[in-house]
Amino acid sequence: MARPTELVKRLLLGRPFRSDRLAHAVLPKRVALPVFASDAMSSVAYAPEQIYLALSIAGAGAFVYAGWIGLFIALVMIAVVASYRQNVHAYPSGGGDYEVATVNHGPAAGLVVASALLVDYVLTVAVSISAAAANIGSALTIVDEHKVAFSLIAIFLLAAVNLRGIRESGVAFAVPTYAFIFGIIALILYGLFRAFVLGDTLTAESANFQLVAEEPDLAGVPLVFLLLRTFASGCAALTGVEAISNGVPSFKPPKGKNAATTLLLMGSIAVAMFMGLIALANITGVQMAENPRLQFLDAPNGYIQKTLLAQLAQTVFDGFPPGFVYVTAVTGLILVLAANTAFNGFPVLGSILAQDRYLPRQLHTRGDRLAFSNGIVMLALAAMILVIVYDADENKLIQLYIVGVFVSFVMSQSGMIRHWNRHLRTERDARARRRMRRSQAINAFGLVMTAAVLVIVVVTKFTHGAWLSIVFMVAFYLMMRLIRKHYDNVARELVPPDERPPLPSRNHVVVVVSKLHLPTLRALSYAQATRPDTIVALTVNVDDADTRALQAEWDRRRIPVPLSVVESPYREITRPIIDHIKGIRKASPRDVVTVFIPEYVVGRWWENLLHNQSALRIKSRLLFEPGVMVTSVPWQLASSEKRDLDHFDDRMSPRR
Amino acid sequence: MARPTELVKRLLLGRPFRSDRLAHAVLPKRVALPVFASDAMSSVAYAPEQIYLALSIAGAGAFVYAGWIGLFIALVMIAVVASYRQNVHAYPSGGGDYEVATVNHGPAAGLVVASALLVDYVLTVAVSISAAAANIGSALTIVDEHKVAFSLIAIFLLAAVNLRGIRESGVAFAVPTYAFIFGIIALILYGLFRAFVLGDTLTAESANFQLVAEEPDLAGVPLVFLLLRTFASGCAALTGVEAISNGVPSFKPPKGKNAATTLLLMGSIAVAMFMGLIALANITGVQMAENPRLQFLDAPNGYIQKTLLAQLAQTVFDGFPPGFVYVTAVTGLILVLAANTAFNGFPVLGSILAQDRYLPRQLHTRGDRLAFSNGIVMLALAAMILVIVYDADENKLIQLYIVGVFVSFVMSQSGMIRHWNRHLRTERDARARRRMRRSQAINAFGLVMTAAVLVIVVVTKFTHGAWLSIVFMVAFYLMMRLIRKHYDNVARELVPPDERPPLPSRNHVVVVVSKLHLPTLRALSYAQATRPDTIVALTVNVDDADTRALQAEWDRRRIPVPLSVVESPYREITRPIIDHIKGIRKASPRDVVTVFIPEYVVGRWWENLLHNQSALRIKSRLLFEPGVMVTSVPWQLASSEKRDLDHFDDRMSPRR
Repeated sequence: MARPTELVKRLLLGRPFRSDRLAHAVLPKRVALPVFASDAMSSVAYAPEQIYLALSIAGAGAFVYAGWIGLFIALVMIAVVASYRQNVHAYPSGGGDYEVATVNHGPAAGLVVASALLVDYVLTVAVSISAAAANIGSALTIVDEHKVAFSLIAIFLLAAVNLRGIRESGVAFAVPTYAFIFGIIALILYGLFRAFVLGDTLTAESANFQLVAEEPDLAGVPLVFLLLRTFASGCAALTGVEAISNGVPSFKPPKGKNAATTLLLMGSIAVAMFMGLIALANITGVQMAENPRLQFLDAPNGYIQKTLLAQLAQTVFDGFPPGFVYVTAVTGLILVLAANTAFNGFPVLGSILAQDRYLPRQLHTRGDRLAFSNGIVMLALAAMILVIVYDADENKLIQLYIVGVFVSFVMSQSGMIRHWNRHLRTERDARARRRMRRSQAINAFGLVMTAAVLVIVVVTKFTHGAWLSIVFMVAFYLMMRLIRKHYDNVARELVPPDERPPLPSRNHVVVVVSKLHLPTLRALSYAQATRPDTIVALTVNVDDADTRALQAEWDRRRIPVPLSVVESPYREITRPIIDHIKGIRKASPRDVVTVFIPEYVVGRWWENLLHNQSALRIKSRLLFEPGVMVTSVPWQLASSEKRDLDHFDDRMSPRR
Repeated sequence: MARPTELVKRLLLGRPFRSDRLAHAVLPKRVALPVFASDAMSSVAYAPEQIYLALSIAGAGAFVYAGWIGLFIALVMIAVVASYRQNVHAYPSGGGDYEVATVNHGPAAGLVVASALLVDYVLTVAVSISAAAANIGSALTIVDEHKVAFSLIAIFLLAAVNLRGIRESGVAFAVPTYAFIFGIIALILYGLFRAFVLGDTLTAESANFQLVAEEPDLAGVPLVFLLLRTFASGCAALTGVEAISNGVPSFKPPKGKNAATTLLLMGSIAVAMFMGLIALANITGVQMAENPRLQFLDAPNGYIQKTLLAQLAQTVFDGFPPGFVYVTAVTGLILVLAANTAFNGFPVLGSILAQDRYLPRQLHTRGDRLAFSNGIVMLALAAMILVIVYDADENKLIQLYIVGVFVSFVMSQSGMIRHWNRHLRTERDARARRRMRRSQAINAFGLVMTAAVLVIVVVTKFTHGAWLSIVFMVAFYLMMRLIRKHYDNVARELVPPDERPPLPSRNHVVVVVSKLHLPTLRALSYAQATRPDTIVALTVNVDDADTRALQAEWDRRRIPVPLSVVESPYREITRPIIDHIKGIRKASPRDVVTVFIPEYVVGRWWENLLHNQSALRIKSRLLFEPGVMVTSVPWQLASSEKRDLDHFDDRMSPRR
């Protein structure tokens, strides 16, 4: 409100943009890749680890399944990337899965997707930042000891960067993303080189621990269940693939084609990194445990389990510490940036939902600097709450994560099948029909794969936290339905009939008076200036002496407006005034009553606590009386000149 | 806001009182004693214990000083009671120390006393309730384990009872107070009877422990310092004496005389109980320690130190458990009721300070049921915060307590000396002069005693928490100065000159329009009904298509008010409207501009989040423009009929 906060806001947000420069906030492929793909690619920092953690329940022997599970996940990933390439071509407007589901399955399905995505965006931030804390914590003990604080600060900084606008984000995030890709590829290649060309024996620090299994001797159905759950955990690698489909409008034209190319590039890199890391883990014999201090019998006292990625880097670069530091640093960094994907997507989705009247209208308002500040602030707050509640523990947060992603995958791919059916009904050109059938087949394959994963995730993860995601989705869904229903009801209520409403025949003015000071005199003369049909000054008698003094001063000044005193045996203020006005309305129901209330305008926030409390009460109550207008006659106190009025800036976002 | 909260409010508060029944809320002496003296008398539940705890630092040998220190404290107590008897005769209006200091030393001194009293009221609640938890916890382990929760619930219930009104409080609190007095006197008499008549050996459970002193072999100046600090701690027994002087208006007439009699009664009982308990402690050989588990070498494992009073009751009634239970229960109860004294005094003081414009005006508003609900709620909140911060530990809280009490004692007694001097200057009657001189001598003796205690308290307790009280007092003092200065500035600004302000020559109306729906049409016809000199409908172009559609519909309906479109390259809403209105003001500076804004009225609180946000922004900004009025044209949505309007009740408190 006051100057210091304005200064901070300017420092964080920069100067506002002009509307016609909006078109400039688009990204070439080389910048779009890091901005929209950092989420998907950063998933490889935690997905292999999730596989090893899930398998550890059955003991060290189960780690042999890691490779096979990895292969299945890579297959799903290829199917999903191929499917989404069809989506971005067909729906380049940035509505993403929400638009695909709405157009092809109807608004209810779109709302299901929207609920899933809202939950996912929040979780993307919480999971990525917590994973960043774990990775950086593998190298820096101080971060490991203050994971929650680190995560909260990181979320705050990300929110601030995004409030400054999308353009800077892209450039600032390109370098670290490429540095991460370079680091992981170098790690994999150098590891394979050492193992197969130099013939070195690579042994991770956890390779020789004796692992106590929670469920040893697992076989038959329970083993299959464990493997399915491991598969479900590993599917965390697929999170973030949909981000590009929501970001198509930010690409340079031809937007659809560029987005599809970027998707392919991203998918190839992600699959290569994911499988490479699992191979390295296999070679170095890494072991992970949910409770390392209890489950690793011969680990040194106070052993802190590093992340899987950190252990690989430590092993491969064991004679070259800068390599370990580099990989850990860029991994931490890209995870922080992955959270940025959500900061790009969440406010856009919120604005679209607000335009469709599923969320409050003001989310549609564009804040300073072309970014949707309301949505950004909400996202940051929700993620901060999750981080605090879950103690920044990525392994717990990730359990909530995957459901929403696959709900929107399934809705989107099934929607695409309908999309192609609709187009095939009218398309006559044989080549075009062939192309459509091919696209439809790809989407159908994607649907089968993602639907299978969704079922597996819900069945194997339900009690581990998936239920909570589902509860949140249902809550979001119901809330948005409620808001939409409210807006629809209001819109119906407000449709005007074709004939004009009759003009009120007369205007009765009531000026509310407590003392005879300048604001009262101004209110009286302004009220007279509107030349009403009748005018009266109204005061409530709560203290006989005060009222007599007011009446005497009124007479002395020969004020030409009659002063009417209403009694108040209970010393109430509001009720007698309302009763008086109801009386006027009753006597002449076709007229209108205008109530003038003097209002103080102050410069400092706390001064508001010292004034206007009674006026506000009267005004709020009067609004419920039909046929009554309330006019505030402001009196600017000297202190009001100190007020910086710039914070009344507001901007609407353009239509999509 | 909604019905359920109204129901809860009614259940807690009962029905409102009529103004002319206010006079009935006065108390006969037998009821006034428990209401206003429970604070002072309950002090004997913790004051002797404070003496033993302070002495324990020097080891078991130091306990021999307890009797002498008790005697000195009793002397001070007699002096203070005698002094206050003069006060209530001279100032029966209930302003208490605040009034005495203001009248005789000026407003700044009055404000010092007010600050001290505000701090003290909060501490009275926190200390009394924490002590209650400790006493009840001596008998019930569950309370001992949940002291903080117990204290918070007790404060909440007290606040609720007081929101219902003072009359019920008096009756409800009379029985337990008399039960407490009876219990303590019975304990003392029966203990003395057993020791001196029956010749029983009374040995407290802690009598035979070996106490490890923190500072053994204390002698010389350090010993004197310790004794002074012990004396200061024991002066906690004097807290609450001033309560009666603030409660004089609640007495039956003759108010002054009845209050003085009640004071004498209270003082005699308190001194008797205080000295009796110290005597009993001496006979039974009770020992107290700040860290009983560390300092009592041969205490059983997991020893929980009972309060001194509980140990005495346990020893005296060792063959008669109901005696122990009775004393513990009534002690806990009277401590809870002592907190009630603050709930009676704090809102009255707050209301008086609000009348003198040292606190926000709304504190002067009398809530439901003749009690000052705003002040009660604030007091409860502040005490709850203290209880949480200090873990409901009475021994820590008590360190903050005594400073404020003695600041107001000293200010009040020195004020009384001036009071008598002033009266002696004009009084000619010899008998009256003699009476005045005698009163003045009593007040002078009170001043010497209390000033000595204040110096001792500040010197010996400063680092133990007294500094924090002083900081709070200074903060209250500065805050109230600031508020008064603000109100004074405003009052000066608002004094009207004798000539009337010139009437504005013309009234220009601007109707803010976003869409063409019913609220807009109503705003337009109401605006026309005020027959302005010029009228224009104003819309901001943030989207060309929307604006064209609006213009077309405007023309189709042949609306007789011209529609003016302002451009907004930055898609802002507020700024272009302000600029347009500034333009009108500039063209005709002696006219007035009335801006009509349609406003939605809804029934459920959350619906407000979905509407009116832009309207509120525009209105708040317009208030800063001189010569501009803002008229809200309410549109009551169907849901608004569900709103219960009773919560707009408000009441002013009568003048004192």
